[in-house]
Amino acid sequence: MLVKVLTEAHPTERGFAELRRAMPGISNKMLSQTLRNLALDGLVLRRVEPSIPPRTYYSLTPLGLSLDAPLAAVRAWAEANMATIDDARRNATVGEAAG
Amino acid sequence: MLVKVLTEAHPTERGFAELRRAMPGISNKMLSQTLRNLALDGLVLRRVEPSIPPRTYYSLTPLGLSLDAPLAAVRAWAEANMATIDDARRNATVGEAAG
Repeated sequence: MLVKVLTEAHPTERGFAELRRAMPGISNKMLSQTLRNLALDGLVLRRVEPSIPPRTYYSLTPLGLSLDAPLAAVRAWAEANMATIDDARRNATVGEAAG
Repeated sequence: MLVKVLTEAHPTERGFAELRRAMPGISNKMLSQTLRNLALDGLVLRRVEPSIPPRTYYSLTPLGLSLDAPLAAVRAWAEANMATIDDARRNATVGEAAG
């Protein structure tokens, strides 16, 4: 999801607060950790603006950008099959409760 | 990885021990939980053979099978870029230690 948001922002960057707004439900901690891991892996570029207070901006590297297409295939699969999976899970849970 | 192993087994099924052998490093607990979640989602079919002791076999449903292609795109990306990511992480870690 983060890769998708940053791909849509490409070639510009996004601030932390903007990223959080684009991903309702994600915690500060989870977003920070994910950004940190993606930066360590060379998928995300982190730029600190020396303002007061300092602001941090994130963008995708070319490597990060290249991950969007394969992830998009998984997202498309998930969106196409979400209703089927929800039905299966509901039925399975009913079965467990009954059995 | 589990979806890949079960896709390769398709159209036959695999026992729990066979699946574990095919995925070195996975724990019993992680494999059980993943299989259970995939079964609840309708991606995996679980069949209990009423032997003594009972044996359980797993196979992909058509829905589970349809997930292999999108996941294969992500796997291919990961394999193609693993060395680059390892390098990035090594350099980032050195930078952190030095900085």
